[in-house]
Amino acid sequence: MPKGVSIQVIRRLPRYYRFLTELEANGVDKISSTKLASVMSATASQVRQDLNCFGGFGQQGYGYSVAGLREEIGRILGLNNIHPSILLGAGNLGRALATHLNFEQLGFKLTAIFEKDKKLVGTMLRGITVLSDDEIEEYVRTHDVDTAMLALPKDSVEKLIDKLYALGVKNYWNFSHYDISKKYSDTVVENVHLSDSLMTLCYRINEKNKTE
Amino acid sequence: MPKGVSIQVIRRLPRYYRFLTELEANGVDKISSTKLASVMSATASQVRQDLNCFGGFGQQGYGYSVAGLREEIGRILGLNNIHPSILLGAGNLGRALATHLNFEQLGFKLTAIFEKDKKLVGTMLRGITVLSDDEIEEYVRTHDVDTAMLALPKDSVEKLIDKLYALGVKNYWNFSHYDISKKYSDTVVENVHLSDSLMTLCYRINEKNKTE
Repeated sequence: MPKGVSIQVIRRLPRYYRFLTELEANGVDKISSTKLASVMSATASQVRQDLNCFGGFGQQGYGYSVAGLREEIGRILGLNNIHPSILLGAGNLGRALATHLNFEQLGFKLTAIFEKDKKLVGTMLRGITVLSDDEIEEYVRTHDVDTAMLALPKDSVEKLIDKLYALGVKNYWNFSHYDISKKYSDTVVENVHLSDSLMTLCYRINEKNKTE
Repeated sequence: MPKGVSIQVIRRLPRYYRFLTELEANGVDKISSTKLASVMSATASQVRQDLNCFGGFGQQGYGYSVAGLREEIGRILGLNNIHPSILLGAGNLGRALATHLNFEQLGFKLTAIFEKDKKLVGTMLRGITVLSDDEIEEYVRTHDVDTAMLALPKDSVEKLIDKLYALGVKNYWNFSHYDISKKYSDTVVENVHLSDSLMTLCYRINEKNKTE
């Protein structure tokens, strides 16, 4: 992949991948940039510009092969490179993540789940027996763990992060407000801040109401 | 607020608000742009530039008043303007949202929760009795409902959206992959695509591994 592709373009690729997966499932073989843009509610020039960042895949007068473009974007994202992962937290959020996401199609494989609440330890989730959080260290020492998914509150992450980092876990999907990459700059962290999303929604509703 | 502030700047405001709330809770009275930038892992010039979009609040040689800046950003976001909201879906995700988020501090108030699964109807969540999804129409007709939070799969949203829109619900916090604003362009929709976040994480891990 060419260097210097901005993170903004990268962040749009999952969306392309998602729409192309759907088009392929619906039996669509090829698509023009105009039509792809329309499906994605983007402009055709934006689509062409984004895909040109990766060398372009379209043929003049033919458009894009849906399966080919999907495969190529999957390759750029590296989704076939499966990262063994542990989930910390089997509360409502952890259970929602474990239940609804197709990890294997998104570049991850969930191999173990840990929970502090003893009532939940021993229950099954996605075919995995929930372990006690006392067992994290032993598990990570004896298994290949690439990524930790943190469905935990901020203070729990604060208590755990030094241990996880010392054990060599450097990649995090983080639902807490704890700022991991500030403490450990050589980590890769994707934060999901649901409250930020709600505040943005609040702003946008207010702005719309002003113009009505 | 000045017109023409980009959505990129707006999307950073919740983050400022979050950090300022924390600083205030920790008893910090005033803060320089350099220090605020450091707390937020941003550059001081970025912080000054962002805050200047709204007229700037800092005083030379003094910095920013934490409480004053927080209040001002809260005012810009309109967080004191509370939007009455319903939650659709009381499964794991819906329960996680209802349990963990301080809606009232984020511009929303959860007034009712609806669920298809009869086993969950009648249970309590955040002090609210979960209602059957048969009751949505009656509820929305007889109550002030500004926003719907959709903790539902795509096909459920597809089935419900026409009814909700016809009932006058135009604002959505959407966890499904159903593209609401494509169908109804006068809606305000914040989408949370957890799978996109995971794919981005996958890409970033692979990129890091290439350079190691």
